[in-house]
Order: sequence, then C-alpha cells, then structure tokens
Amino acid sequence: MRVLRLTVSYDGTGFFGWQFQPGKRTIQETLETAVESVTGEQQRSLASGRTDAGVHALGQVVAVRTDTELDATTLCRALNARLPEDIRIRDVGFADPDFHPIRDAKSKRYRYSLQFGGQHDVFRRRFCWHLHRPLDPDAMRDAARLLVGEQDYASFQASGAPRKSTVRNIHHLEIADESVDGQYFVTFEIEANGFLYNMVRIIVGSLVQIGLGKQDEAWLRRVVDGRDRKLAGPTAPPEGLCLLFVRYK
Amino acid sequence: MRVLRLTVSYDGTGFFGWQFQPGKRTIQETLETAVESVTGEQQRSLASGRTDAGVHALGQVVAVRTDTELDATTLCRALNARLPEDIRIRDVGFADPDFHPIRDAKSKRYRYSLQFGGQHDVFRRRFCWHLHRPLDPDAMRDAARLLVGEQDYASFQASGAPRKSTVRNIHHLEIADESVDGQYFVTFEIEANGFLYNMVRIIVGSLVQIGLGKQDEAWLRRVVDGRDRKLAGPTAPPEGLCLLFVRYK
Repeated sequence: MRVLRLTVSYDGTGFFGWQFQPGKRTIQETLETAVESVTGEQQRSLASGRTDAGVHALGQVVAVRTDTELDATTLCRALNARLPEDIRIRDVGFADPDFHPIRDAKSKRYRYSLQFGGQHDVFRRRFCWHLHRPLDPDAMRDAARLLVGEQDYASFQASGAPRKSTVRNIHHLEIADESVDGQYFVTFEIEANGFLYNMVRIIVGSLVQIGLGKQDEAWLRRVVDGRDRKLAGPTAPPEGLCLLFVRYK
Repeated sequence: MRVLRLTVSYDGTGFFGWQFQPGKRTIQETLETAVESVTGEQQRSLASGRTDAGVHALGQVVAVRTDTELDATTLCRALNARLPEDIRIRDVGFADPDFHPIRDAKSKRYRYSLQFGGQHDVFRRRFCWHLHRPLDPDAMRDAARLLVGEQDYASFQASGAPRKSTVRNIHHLEIADESVDGQYFVTFEIEANGFLYNMVRIIVGSLVQIGLGKQDEAWLRRVVDGRDRKLAGPTAPPEGLCLLFVRYK
C-alpha cells in the first residue's frame, strides 16, 4: 500500500465544499470517484483542510492510499482525464506511508480577493467578493500589522467551532491593490501555522470595516484583545477565498 | 426618441453568442429583455459587432433607441439589477440620434489569451485556450511583425463569409507572456480599423503554428501573400477571445 500525495486545484463555485455530503456535489466525492475509476479501489481521501462551499484552491494537498502500480505521470494524466474541468490535479507524488496532510502541515497560505466600486467584473466574479463602496487599502494595510505574529485569534473563529487552543502564528499578511481594465481589486495573502474555522474570512471582513472607514485601528486592537467573535467584523463571503498552498517543511 | 449607448461586458461561456436566435440564450436577447423590463419598450439593440458563441467582451458597445426619461445612472443600476451576473453594463450614455455602433467605429481591440503546458488553470479556463505542448513566444512575436499595417488579410477570413474588401489595417499587435502561479500564459492584443470574420482567431491559430515550431516566418509570409484561407493555420477556439473596446474617435 502506497500513499499518493495529490496537489489539487479547483474552482469551488460548483461544489458544496470539500467534504463528502450525501447527494451533494463535493470535491472529495468527485475526486474519490475519479481515483476509483483509475485504480479500481475505493479509498477515502484526506485533505490538508476542508474548504467550505464556494471556496477555491490552487494547491490543496490530498492523501489517498492505493495499491496501484501506475507511475505518477500516468496517474496524473488518467485522473485529469476523468475529472470535470473545475478540478485539476497539478501534481501527483508518492508520500511516506505515515504522511498525514493535516498533522504534517507546517503552514498554509490563503489568498482573499475582492473588487470595489464599479460593476462586478464578469471574468473574476466567481473568484472575488464585490463591494459597491470605495475602500481605503492603506488604512487596511496599516491596521493589518496588528494581525501578524503569534497571539490568540479567538475573536476570528466562527462561533460553534471551538478549538482547544486559539493561539496561531500569522507569519505573513500582505495587502495588494491594483487596477485592472479600469476595475479596482484588493488581494489579501495570509500565511499562518494554522487557521481557526473561518479565520481568513473573519479577518478580511474585519479589515474591510476599517477600509470602509467604519472602524479604526484602535477598534481592531480591542477586537484582538477581547477574544470574542462578536467583537469582530462580519465573515467575508466564500467566493473570494482560495487556498494557495500548504508547506510541509 | 433618444439613443442609449451601453458599454457592456460579458462572460460569453453561457451564451450562444451576441445575436438573437430563437430558443437560445444570447446576449442580445438577454439585454433586450432587461431593457424592456426597465423601460417598457421593445427595441432592437445593435452591437459594434456580433461576437460568436463562447467569445467574451470587456467593452462591447451597444445602441438602443428609447423614449425613457430615466437618467443614465438610474438606467445603469436598473439594467444591472435585472441582468444575470454574466452580463454587466459598465456605462450608460446618450449618443447622437444617428449614432451607429458598427459604421461609426474607428477601430476595435481584441485580446486573445492562451495557456500552455501543465494543467488547464481552473480559474482562467473559461477565458483561455489550453495547449498541452510548449510554445515559443519570441518566435510568435518576431513573425507577428508581418501582420501589422494595411494589407489584404483574405487568408485570415473564415470561408463562407466573404467581404467586398479584405484589406484591413492592424495598428497594433502585441504578444505578452507571463507566468502566474506556476502556469504559463500568452496574451495577444490586436487592434485594427476593422476585422474580417474570425480574423483574430485565425491569426492566433496561425501564430501558434509558429510558436509550436511547426511553421516559420517564411511560411507566414506565404500565407499573407496567398490570400487564401486554406493556407493559414486553424481557427483558435472561442474561449480565449475577448473584445476589449471599440474606439469611436
């Protein structure tokens, strides 16, 4: 028995998230069906994390056990031939027998994309949140410095999904803004040693309050210190979120 | 009676092209339905050009006659509220009563996007052609200089769609290549005083023959001189094509 390590990208728009749910189109089930069709084996797959309905991935990492003797290149080609075009396997490798995509992850990086003003860009609409009102990227960038480093992120965890420890270390938080074809976009890139449930979307929703001028940096300080989800901003919608990659060393 | 001038963007994936066809979802019919719902008037719309099934637009220009007394901002908001999210009105203006979006156009610019190698990018798949084999962008760039200026482009016109004159003036042809998230993309931008039917797609299909190393610059010279569609490369697929803008002065 070997362990396949798949690097998977998907457009989450047409899926009810990663995790198997009876009667729903999920990434997990679509992937397992393709694996079964190629190897003849029914195996449960394990991802580095479950992405929610509508959330995308560029480099999700998935482990699947298999007895197949096919080589990696053949497996990659055969899987992609059977997968719908909104899921692509970007790489197939063989991992150590005890590889665990959740436990072994050292850090993960997410990107959150939004557009502000104008009309929702028809080409990016599936991959970015649209806000009608103007945003101040500099105000968000200044405030975002409070959200870097190791601290308790309890305020940025969806209620009803408690973890034993809510301390995480955000290594990197960068906010870029650009104008493309006359439309305005803001991109957040966040990398941490781990994320609480909905953490990126609550961070973005909170920074947007500041970008809109409704809140300021002192408010964000109180949100962090208060360790209470009710203090933070609303959860940004799923379509802007994309799991970029997972680091294992 | 006034003439509305609409600047319209659309994701062409879900449409059978611009032009009305009974029983098919077209951009023209979807737009006219929205106009009727806002103004109560049944008016035929006229675009700067018909885009084919699967072809996109960032700034298609459309004229519609109307008796409405609504102002431009209100019209834009009301139309977008009634349109599906794969069509967005980016701007509404009032044109001269004799404005004709085809006849009055001075030039048009198209973009053609393709990806080569790797797996088809799940985020751009609706908007770019995917080629499995590697391409040489420099070879295409060098050869493309033959396709700038005023000359007879008869070889780059779909058969069965003859025009009286096949002379056009390509003002601008630029080929850019970039790597995004580890994938390789090539973008062609072409502006001319007019285009023959399928001209951009046949130009791209021909340049790709050179990028793949199957043909060279001398061949392209013979294609141009031969004035015969059969000499040129295959027509590139519609999904990579986007009408960027139309110039009227």
